[in-house]
Amino acid sequence: MKVGVLGPRGTYSEIAAWSHFRGRAEMVLYPTISDVVEAVARGEVDAGVIPVESLREGSVGESLDALTWADVKIKEEIVMPITHALLGVRGARMERITQVLSHPQAIAQCREFLRQHLPLVEVVEMGSTARAAEQVSKLGQPHIAAIGPKMLAKIYGLQVLKDNIQSGEKNITRFLLIAKEDSRRTGNDKTSIVFYTANDRPGILYEILGEFASRKINLTKIESRPSKKALGDYLFFIDLEGHREDRKVKEALRGVESKTAMLRVLGSYPKRF
Amino acid sequence: MKVGVLGPRGTYSEIAAWSHFRGRAEMVLYPTISDVVEAVARGEVDAGVIPVESLREGSVGESLDALTWADVKIKEEIVMPITHALLGVRGARMERITQVLSHPQAIAQCREFLRQHLPLVEVVEMGSTARAAEQVSKLGQPHIAAIGPKMLAKIYGLQVLKDNIQSGEKNITRFLLIAKEDSRRTGNDKTSIVFYTANDRPGILYEILGEFASRKINLTKIESRPSKKALGDYLFFIDLEGHREDRKVKEALRGVESKTAMLRVLGSYPKRF
Repeated sequence: MKVGVLGPRGTYSEIAAWSHFRGRAEMVLYPTISDVVEAVARGEVDAGVIPVESLREGSVGESLDALTWADVKIKEEIVMPITHALLGVRGARMERITQVLSHPQAIAQCREFLRQHLPLVEVVEMGSTARAAEQVSKLGQPHIAAIGPKMLAKIYGLQVLKDNIQSGEKNITRFLLIAKEDSRRTGNDKTSIVFYTANDRPGILYEILGEFASRKINLTKIESRPSKKALGDYLFFIDLEGHREDRKVKEALRGVESKTAMLRVLGSYPKRF
Repeated sequence: MKVGVLGPRGTYSEIAAWSHFRGRAEMVLYPTISDVVEAVARGEVDAGVIPVESLREGSVGESLDALTWADVKIKEEIVMPITHALLGVRGARMERITQVLSHPQAIAQCREFLRQHLPLVEVVEMGSTARAAEQVSKLGQPHIAAIGPKMLAKIYGLQVLKDNIQSGEKNITRFLLIAKEDSRRTGNDKTSIVFYTANDRPGILYEILGEFASRKINLTKIESRPSKKALGDYLFFIDLEGHREDRKVKEALRGVESKTAMLRVLGSYPKRF
């Protein structure tokens, strides 16, 4: 089975895909999230894993945009906490580290650890935690370390000098597994939809939500996004509890369709979050 | 006047603040968005500029989280399209460039330009476009260029070799100017609120939106975010048309307050978007 993910080797998407498939899939790397979605739509890969929202950074606009129009379905959601480790070459020791490479966000999350344990270290910002690990591996110096997910140690032949060095809450990230078909009904499902009202008159969203409220369908996410066609035009993304084959979900979606200019069901899948 | 922004020199936030204040403010750089918000709350700076959403990347979770609890108000919204330029040292010429430094996202946005005009160039990923410009300036080599907003040329003493090199739609970003007080009523205003229902029963959001719909108050943004206290608990962020001092907005907010466990008015400000 071939699974498309955002490259380079070791992105959070690849790590999420690894943890989901437990090694029983071949990863194919793409330069952008849209490229992953298009590769799934073309059938070049059997599935794709893309990030959709993280506690810290919010929704991933590029993923929502790519899903809106592509011929793919959401088959699963994958929820993963992102933790960071200090990674060095084999034989390196934490006390000897004088330079640390990482992405600015990971550095910010581990600032407390650095302040306490490596106050004199030189910090170098890189484009991604994966690039930082790759660079440390290439340089092969025992005094240079990277900060990033522990899994990067496996990918780039590094050693975990210290795990779980981020402070504050974990940055839980939700990924979507996309494929040509969504999932069968399990009885505990979610359905993602996107719609466009072509009309921002007050109350249209209220009327649409009424289709769900009147049927006691719970919404787990709602988000508006400018449609890019014109400022002030909005797309709405909603996750709801239930499968698109459930009778009351079916009825509600029929109601929504009658009130909107465009409705797409992005897929039904087992609820994990 | 002192204005706090996310550092290092030349971030999109700083550029937005520059374009808003047209040089009539002293910029103070902070390492994270939360630090900017806290500096405003403490009165260390008179105002702050933070990113809140971009067309491409969606909402900035860290900004929404920081605003939820801080003792600051939204005073203005600043809308800025982010465009990219190829920047080199003085005397550099585009045809001679062999290495380009930038943030992965900017590189992705300018891939078409690179493919067409600099197909053999070596691309090096950096932690931010500002860092890339800084590095080019430091190295001082005529064959090395950075990709980033044109304003970086001024900040780092570089020359614009080619402007507007991104492809596809512009990445419009919305920033918020925050201060201790929000803005007076102008007659064409927006108000941002955040609330927490402590109750995910189906229909509660519908009932809340009814407070606005029944008064014909238009919503320009709605977004749910996990509250971080427990998975499945949500905060809702809504932007609505009108000032918090408008009679019908006042009434609606009173209605929302009676239905929620927490309601905060983040501020009223002139509508620009």
